[in-house]
Amino acid sequence: MEIWRINARTHEFSREPVPTEWAHLGGRALLSKIMVDEMDAACDPLGPNNKLIFAPGLLVGYHLSSCDRISIGGKSPLTGGVKEANAGGRTGLQLVRLGVKALILEDQPEPDGWRLIHLSPDGARFEDAGEYAGLGVYATAPPLIERYGDKIAVALIGPAGERMLHAAGIQNLDKDEAPSRIAARGGLGAVMGSKRIKAIVIDGSQGTNPPAADPDGLKEARKRYIKGLLEHPQTQSYKDYGTAAMTMMCNTFGALPVRNFSAGSFEDAELLSGEHLRDTLLQRGGDCEPSHPCMAGCTIQSSNIFVTLDKGTKVSPLEYETIGLMGSNLGISDLDVVGRLNWEVNDLGMDSIEIGAALGVAADAGLFDFGDGDRALELVDEIRRDTELGRILGNGAGSTGKALGIERVPVAKNQAFSAYDPRAIKGTGITYATSPQGADHTSGLTIRANVDHRDPKGQKELSREKQIDMAGYDSLGACIFAAFGYSVDKSVIPGLLNAIYGWDLGETALQDLGRESLVHEREFNRRAGFTKKDDRLPEWVTKEALAPHNAVFDVPEEDLDSVFDW
Amino acid sequence: MEIWRINARTHEFSREPVPTEWAHLGGRALLSKIMVDEMDAACDPLGPNNKLIFAPGLLVGYHLSSCDRISIGGKSPLTGGVKEANAGGRTGLQLVRLGVKALILEDQPEPDGWRLIHLSPDGARFEDAGEYAGLGVYATAPPLIERYGDKIAVALIGPAGERMLHAAGIQNLDKDEAPSRIAARGGLGAVMGSKRIKAIVIDGSQGTNPPAADPDGLKEARKRYIKGLLEHPQTQSYKDYGTAAMTMMCNTFGALPVRNFSAGSFEDAELLSGEHLRDTLLQRGGDCEPSHPCMAGCTIQSSNIFVTLDKGTKVSPLEYETIGLMGSNLGISDLDVVGRLNWEVNDLGMDSIEIGAALGVAADAGLFDFGDGDRALELVDEIRRDTELGRILGNGAGSTGKALGIERVPVAKNQAFSAYDPRAIKGTGITYATSPQGADHTSGLTIRANVDHRDPKGQKELSREKQIDMAGYDSLGACIFAAFGYSVDKSVIPGLLNAIYGWDLGETALQDLGRESLVHEREFNRRAGFTKKDDRLPEWVTKEALAPHNAVFDVPEEDLDSVFDW
Repeated sequence: MEIWRINARTHEFSREPVPTEWAHLGGRALLSKIMVDEMDAACDPLGPNNKLIFAPGLLVGYHLSSCDRISIGGKSPLTGGVKEANAGGRTGLQLVRLGVKALILEDQPEPDGWRLIHLSPDGARFEDAGEYAGLGVYATAPPLIERYGDKIAVALIGPAGERMLHAAGIQNLDKDEAPSRIAARGGLGAVMGSKRIKAIVIDGSQGTNPPAADPDGLKEARKRYIKGLLEHPQTQSYKDYGTAAMTMMCNTFGALPVRNFSAGSFEDAELLSGEHLRDTLLQRGGDCEPSHPCMAGCTIQSSNIFVTLDKGTKVSPLEYETIGLMGSNLGISDLDVVGRLNWEVNDLGMDSIEIGAALGVAADAGLFDFGDGDRALELVDEIRRDTELGRILGNGAGSTGKALGIERVPVAKNQAFSAYDPRAIKGTGITYATSPQGADHTSGLTIRANVDHRDPKGQKELSREKQIDMAGYDSLGACIFAAFGYSVDKSVIPGLLNAIYGWDLGETALQDLGRESLVHEREFNRRAGFTKKDDRLPEWVTKEALAPHNAVFDVPEEDLDSVFDW
Repeated sequence: MEIWRINARTHEFSREPVPTEWAHLGGRALLSKIMVDEMDAACDPLGPNNKLIFAPGLLVGYHLSSCDRISIGGKSPLTGGVKEANAGGRTGLQLVRLGVKALILEDQPEPDGWRLIHLSPDGARFEDAGEYAGLGVYATAPPLIERYGDKIAVALIGPAGERMLHAAGIQNLDKDEAPSRIAARGGLGAVMGSKRIKAIVIDGSQGTNPPAADPDGLKEARKRYIKGLLEHPQTQSYKDYGTAAMTMMCNTFGALPVRNFSAGSFEDAELLSGEHLRDTLLQRGGDCEPSHPCMAGCTIQSSNIFVTLDKGTKVSPLEYETIGLMGSNLGISDLDVVGRLNWEVNDLGMDSIEIGAALGVAADAGLFDFGDGDRALELVDEIRRDTELGRILGNGAGSTGKALGIERVPVAKNQAFSAYDPRAIKGTGITYATSPQGADHTSGLTIRANVDHRDPKGQKELSREKQIDMAGYDSLGACIFAAFGYSVDKSVIPGLLNAIYGWDLGETALQDLGRESLVHEREFNRRAGFTKKDDRLPEWVTKEALAPHNAVFDVPEEDLDSVFDW
């Protein structure tokens, strides 16, 4: 494996051997190590000293179901701190087939013109991408596939990234050529835009699958992993209902985001449920798919393909987070409206969580009536038309709250809460507050633990455990649902890593990776000026009682300050 | 003297004795002490736990020319840190005549309706102020004077404060009943708006002038002060030209803000000079006044009254900072245009520095052509009409840069640079970077020192000295120009304080006050989460060379980190 380094200004390209101290790392853990080793944490996130880094997880490329994810990182324009966002699709696998352990994109040119970078076994070359400027991702992907072949992976940005909006993500082609697998959070699309790169085309078709030190050991460990995965009861549930299975669970817990986080249960929750979504997809038929793999060979297939009734808009996937933030959070109960909103932000290349939260704040400010889907779509169109209001919304929920003078803004480190109200699921609230990534369920969701989620006691330990595990999975390139397979047998993860790399890791391999990630991420944030005051939720969550359980976020500050004292 | 405390939600009012440890403090030094003693530094600046505090300086009320200023403070919605902004006019004196050492406004009501607070020897009462809601300050002041008499002081907000825009200040009536003396910086008008207080009417006419422990000693010290003031050569210069005398000085130093801080000298600087302003005022005659006192009894009279040609708009004062930020910074060389822009932001109740800087950023983003005054006025009208663009601009230069995707944003701690480019006047650049208040010339302007302002060496010590002195003057209630009088004889300040309060202070009385202020301010910011990473200028000033001298800001970070190691 190599480090590939590309200068976006001079177009210099180099292949470098992997430094010894990076060799044991991948994905999220490698990103934060590179950031701490190479970057000035005080840099302007949209200036020349920020780097945009792509690092496949350690298990990518070994035909392991749900383990081909790509981690993308850099300094976040949204949070001002460290950022890793990961996605499924093809990018991770194609990079690994080129032998790339990390791709580091540096510097920035004068802000004129747009380029794409083409990667193949021959190395990297820049090409003009002016013809794609301003296009949504759904219009950009087909001509790229036409031009470079259907084996390629593509990581690309939409108009939001080009305009450096802070809610812009980086989209990745999925196995069906849809550019909808988004490394969504924290504005990394804006970082790519600041470097004037519209797309990175990765053609690993002439590359090779990565070798394993012990092929037989790998086979054996893979078998145990798949067995664990298939046996786990959640696997079938996620295949049937996708992440939308969460809607009713959250509604029951009183944790659903409803009308800008002003309530925790929604009168029309059933219309947004996984069951209703599945029924709709089955009934609608055609291109609709209730179970769909985002990466080749996925067993879980938690993704889906949703085709809206009106215009036949095709969304893949429609996820619980989007349903929560763009559905109940906006008082909207019509899945077709949610699907159209989702398609729009996908096409713009934006984080649907951040935009859903921003729209909720906008509704609280009177810009539209909760439940008015047409008006919500008009507001998203403001982003597309690049109006001033569009700029406000496109910079996220925090920006919208500041511009419109709203106090109830659901953010931590200026990044929007996911679809779990932190007052009702307090462990996840601790994760929102303390994760170096900003508010994010994928940094350590606690809802599946069998505890009283409204009792502040013991949540610190739970959040800690989940934050460590998730940072570990993000370093493997493993989907959160792969955890089902790994959780059955603690020897599987070290078994896989040892067989692939010839290492000698013990049972804490996952946690060791996770802790190393978190240590480096916190160090980067410290250098960027973060203190424990940044590990807090906004004041209103500690005061405003959440219906129906009248919960407030009452986790003591000492708990927030000691999450990482392990 | 007493502490008056008012709850904006419950309308409770109490008079409290001054705690012993506050007794030796006034103005800025008292504000930061109260904030550290009473406030949760992590509070939401626009939430119920922020406090809005009014504290007259220690010398207010003793018939000392240029020493009747009011300090207003609280947590800044613009910087997220400590904030003191002071102003001339009548507010300080009228509070002292009521025996108020500090007025502390707490909590906030539900956001409906507007109230005013009336203060007199009878205490505080709330009255409905709904009829003034939405009115500019120039329309609000006359009916208040009509209703409460022409002896009152008024501290009030305009539409910007009502809408909680982060560039909103608090206006104060001057001696001629113009509500144009603004405690401008850091968004304290938004804090007042968050408490739903449109105006505070202070009727000290039935109050009493404060007593002096040693009236003869006071008389003698006052005489020496006035003598120093009259003898100082700058006094006449500021009387004749006002602060606009700075235009040509800064132009010569290459430190004038020109077209969003992209150059340091301006081809039409002479049209913005103090000389040209004076000639214009003398020639125009009528209500124009080249020399005008903002407080009763002022010897310096650096203020002026400028009446624009077209509509006869009356602006008092037209200051260098406004001329720099709304003139050359926007490529505008017509004083009448600057005057009209100034009147508009005054009427809205906003900081002309912050809005001038925001407009410069907007021009860089292509929203108008530098030099197009009509378009600049249209953009200010967007703020008045409360459009989305108006909200972006009204939240300041940082907000504008983020919304419009501009890197060259002249801010430190998210507050706009004053009209001295930090690359050309590096000591002032250190002040911008390290002042707990955010970028602000009044926190420690170094331009009058006889040094090479582009040489980074020795600037740290200079900035430190000026920051300490200015924090001291802000605690006395002394105008920056009163320093002319005090600088002649070091025994004058302790002489005045000892005669008034019966103290026994030595020659470092001013610096002791200044240092105590800074220590508390930095402690508040520390608790709010600030680190040395916040004591930095934006990255672009360290890279982008400033014409005509090609200066960059190259003060070593170690110098920035040791400014307060005294």
